[in-house]
Amino acid sequence: MKNQITSALSDFFFEYETPRQVLVRNRRVGVVCRLIQLGVLVYIIGWVFIYEKGYQSTDTAVSSVFTKMKGVGYTNVSGRETVWDVADYVFPSQGDSSFVVMTNYIITEGQKMGKCPELEGKHNCISHDDCVGGSYKRQMTGVCVNTTKTCEVLAWCPVEDDHTVPSPPLLMSAENYTLFIKNSITFPLFDVTRSNLVEEVNKDYLSKCLYHPEDAPLCPIFKLGDIVKLSGFSFENLAQEGGAIGIVIDWTCNLDFHVKHCKPEYNFHGLYGNPTDADASASMGYNFRYAKHYMEDKVPKRTLLKVFGIRFDIIVKSLARKFDIIPTLTAIGSGVGIFGVATVVCDLVLLYLLPKREFYKNMKFKYTDTHIQDPDAEAGSTEAEK
Amino acid sequence: MKNQITSALSDFFFEYETPRQVLVRNRRVGVVCRLIQLGVLVYIIGWVFIYEKGYQSTDTAVSSVFTKMKGVGYTNVSGRETVWDVADYVFPSQGDSSFVVMTNYIITEGQKMGKCPELEGKHNCISHDDCVGGSYKRQMTGVCVNTTKTCEVLAWCPVEDDHTVPSPPLLMSAENYTLFIKNSITFPLFDVTRSNLVEEVNKDYLSKCLYHPEDAPLCPIFKLGDIVKLSGFSFENLAQEGGAIGIVIDWTCNLDFHVKHCKPEYNFHGLYGNPTDADASASMGYNFRYAKHYMEDKVPKRTLLKVFGIRFDIIVKSLARKFDIIPTLTAIGSGVGIFGVATVVCDLVLLYLLPKREFYKNMKFKYTDTHIQDPDAEAGSTEAEK
Amino acid sequence: MKNQITSALSDFFFEYETPRQVLVRNRRVGVVCRLIQLGVLVYIIGWVFIYEKGYQSTDTAVSSVFTKMKGVGYTNVSGRETVWDVADYVFPSQGDSSFVVMTNYIITEGQKMGKCPELEGKHNCISHDDCVGGSYKRQMTGVCVNTTKTCEVLAWCPVEDDHTVPSPPLLMSAENYTLFIKNSITFPLFDVTRSNLVEEVNKDYLSKCLYHPEDAPLCPIFKLGDIVKLSGFSFENLAQEGGAIGIVIDWTCNLDFHVKHCKPEYNFHGLYGNPTDADASASMGYNFRYAKHYMEDKVPKRTLLKVFGIRFDIIVKSLARKFDIIPTLTAIGSGVGIFGVATVVCDLVLLYLLPKREFYKNMKFKYTDTHIQDPDAEAGSTEAEK
Repeated sequence: MKNQITSALSDFFFEYETPRQVLVRNRRVGVVCRLIQLGVLVYIIGWVFIYEKGYQSTDTAVSSVFTKMKGVGYTNVSGRETVWDVADYVFPSQGDSSFVVMTNYIITEGQKMGKCPELEGKHNCISHDDCVGGSYKRQMTGVCVNTTKTCEVLAWCPVEDDHTVPSPPLLMSAENYTLFIKNSITFPLFDVTRSNLVEEVNKDYLSKCLYHPEDAPLCPIFKLGDIVKLSGFSFENLAQEGGAIGIVIDWTCNLDFHVKHCKPEYNFHGLYGNPTDADASASMGYNFRYAKHYMEDKVPKRTLLKVFGIRFDIIVKSLARKFDIIPTLTAIGSGVGIFGVATVVCDLVLLYLLPKREFYKNMKFKYTDTHIQDPDAEAGSTEAEK
Repeated sequence: MKNQITSALSDFFFEYETPRQVLVRNRRVGVVCRLIQLGVLVYIIGWVFIYEKGYQSTDTAVSSVFTKMKGVGYTNVSGRETVWDVADYVFPSQGDSSFVVMTNYIITEGQKMGKCPELEGKHNCISHDDCVGGSYKRQMTGVCVNTTKTCEVLAWCPVEDDHTVPSPPLLMSAENYTLFIKNSITFPLFDVTRSNLVEEVNKDYLSKCLYHPEDAPLCPIFKLGDIVKLSGFSFENLAQEGGAIGIVIDWTCNLDFHVKHCKPEYNFHGLYGNPTDADASASMGYNFRYAKHYMEDKVPKRTLLKVFGIRFDIIVKSLARKFDIIPTLTAIGSGVGIFGVATVVCDLVLLYLLPKREFYKNMKFKYTDTHIQDPDAEAGSTEAEK
Repeated sequence: MKNQITSALSDFFFEYETPRQVLVRNRRVGVVCRLIQLGVLVYIIGWVFIYEKGYQSTDTAVSSVFTKMKGVGYTNVSGRETVWDVADYVFPSQGDSSFVVMTNYIITEGQKMGKCPELEGKHNCISHDDCVGGSYKRQMTGVCVNTTKTCEVLAWCPVEDDHTVPSPPLLMSAENYTLFIKNSITFPLFDVTRSNLVEEVNKDYLSKCLYHPEDAPLCPIFKLGDIVKLSGFSFENLAQEGGAIGIVIDWTCNLDFHVKHCKPEYNFHGLYGNPTDADASASMGYNFRYAKHYMEDKVPKRTLLKVFGIRFDIIVKSLARKFDIIPTLTAIGSGVGIFGVATVVCDLVLLYLLPKREFYKNMKFKYTDTHIQDPDAEAGSTEAEK
């Protein structure tokens, strides 16, 4: 018994099966079939392996971004000179990846809680009855003020008048501000960490460089005016009513090469609507309200700013690739499968389309019974079926 | 020599191999095998291709989100009427994708740096010895104040008393605020950019629409009360102690259709614990402290707000699919491979389970030596092995 | 006709093809081939299935993070005692996933808009001519101030003097602050939602635990000093000039097990440069400017803080795996394909390298014409080609 098993095992180990094949000598079928096989081969090697790099596995990065603005703005509104520094014009101040640079504003100073009539044009009234029933947008007192013919509201008074947006934008000097971006990414699968301050970008270079798409594509210091121009907008238009620009940091890395070749690319584009079709976007402009609170004679007051600004969103896009045995073998394996499809197609031609198909059928197939003439059936016998 | 190569090459090109096969005429094996093959075919076509859309490659989006709140809150605390507008109740003010809407608060006005006794209940003491050794939570002065029987601390005085949270929440009117969401996404692989202001959502529609899950599922303006209700919470409960709600914008797009069919879906759910099992979550509620600093008589003071609010996190979930030749061919190729598995299974049945297995073995195999009776071995010869 | 179709159909259903094979009895080829096949089998089962879990599909999570700091800082600068609480030292205050804890600062109090000379060392001048032409960094007035020999600027005066950074850092007590992290994740593909307050972390445990990598790896309350130490930095160095630390919450979950085994792991690392090569990073340190505005005698003033701090970025890394039929069958299918490659390799050995290759060739192939001696060709006939 034990002998039997060892003998069966040694039989198994010392022999191997290989399929028997018919070598069809037919020019047309041969050429068609070889061309199909060649196509599959070219597809697998050329497309899957070389073009799409199917031998690599991919990973996206976890990333963190810090920003720092520099520059000073200057406004002169009816003789009152003001200087705006970073603490005044960046929101939020701590250097997030998404932030707003103020480029225009409507200021309402010295507001205090109280009752005052609405602006002309809003909540017009003739009698007190028109001012009954508050909405969630305004807290009405139910009084119609005679002088302005508008309802009285409980609000921070005087109410903000934002009918006219200053033009040209008050802080056109924002064009000259510079933005410094620090970005660190990690590809967890490959355990690779990179910063956008790559090898070439040392302390010395940083102190004097300014991003330029061709001349200094790795400098992480950007002039706001350049960013806006590269995204296709006009700075003045954008600064007036505000807008949103995406700064895309593109890390597409082939880690089969040295990690130092893994470098970021910067792209800029408008986030809502593009500059050419201005009215395509249903809601252009970007603004928000911001208040500075203070006390005056024990009364809480505030300075309200309606801030128009350019919102910058730093978006990190990443894709790393590295040789990996699994996708390689999966690609090869499924390639071999597709080779099988090629053979099936050729067989269809051979067995159903050629004039001599019966001959080829007999060459290819052996039958286990005899109701078809089987020239290859030495041991042929009709199988008795139930 | 050259002739030989061309002849070998032309031989190679004008012939092709096709495996020789046995056509087994056996009802049971035939049916089993065909059923297995049918199963594989149904799996590949029905499941991989139609159901799982295996002929498509997938991509997730990079996205950017802006928000804007509208509405006015009103409080009347012991006769003092206050109106809260956007600049007062949204944190941060610049329209981030993650923000807090204040719904309740504990205000401590006129705090200034100094020494004052702790609240009753905290750091009780009998003698000065009980107040020795500061902790990192409080800066003790080492004095036990007689009147309150608590330790004296160096802090912003008077210290905040947050024992009782106002109930009902002071800013229940927050229910009526509206939230406007702008969301722009890009699928980098397919180079498709979409905004949640889709074709149907034009300026006109935006000015009057309000999100409703059935009637206006594409309107990007939401009433806070609706959001809370759709996430399964009661607004009053949530507003009292604060909470966190996720607004999921779901972009599941089949880009084989026109891009205009790529539309967002909005979902809402509580981020910590669900509304039914209130005590499942170890740490419900959401609050933070916020200070407004001011000067009074050259002394820096502050108004401290313990803000209870609803935190909204806008989460963009995206998956785009588009026809791609590589996953298609990979699926076909590995499908052909599984077809091969079907044949192997049938062969096992044929060669090891059927009564006539010896017969089938002889049909299928040809042996290169003769110690087994080989009816097919015309050129059979025992191979001499070392 | 109908009969014919049913008969063809029943023929098709009751028969099946299996390839005819040569069983080569050759020790060397047999062993080589079996070893290759064994290798492929070990690769597919051992590597693809067991090691890489190729039978599972994967998903990454959408996540939301809230944070809450606790602790009080104390400074004593030239006799002036100040206490810093959460509302003072965390930016932003509302508990974002990315925030800054102030550890050091340069304060400039009582700034108001006006004209004042620059600091010594900046914009030195001899005559007014040296001060002509403003830059975007400073708003010059064109006056050279005699006393300081620097240009006069329009700015918030007095200008900030940030030449010397306080050392040791003023808020070393930040080391003892605690950070509480709430993190909720959802794997959309598997419809699984988890919070970092897992089953073991109940209200009771939360009230007394403190994160420790071995003793309390699931406690979501962290001492800042511990975080900095675990990321390899010295707290004092980092606190002095500021820095950035990533807190990685790693959710690697095998959802074939019960969902309760899906637990977070916390890791900490510096985001820019690592602690050992201090000068590798071109731009260490982290600071930003922050202003508190107030009114004094109707004049707007501000207190400017240059905040040095530790920026914490909470990065959620997630990967869930679960059994899925499609990757399983794709792996099997492409494995079968690779098996085919093994046979091809063995055939190459058999047909081109062995001494008896002609014999094996004749065993394996049958030719459709006769210009090669074909012992297997019972129905052999020269095909007439055009």
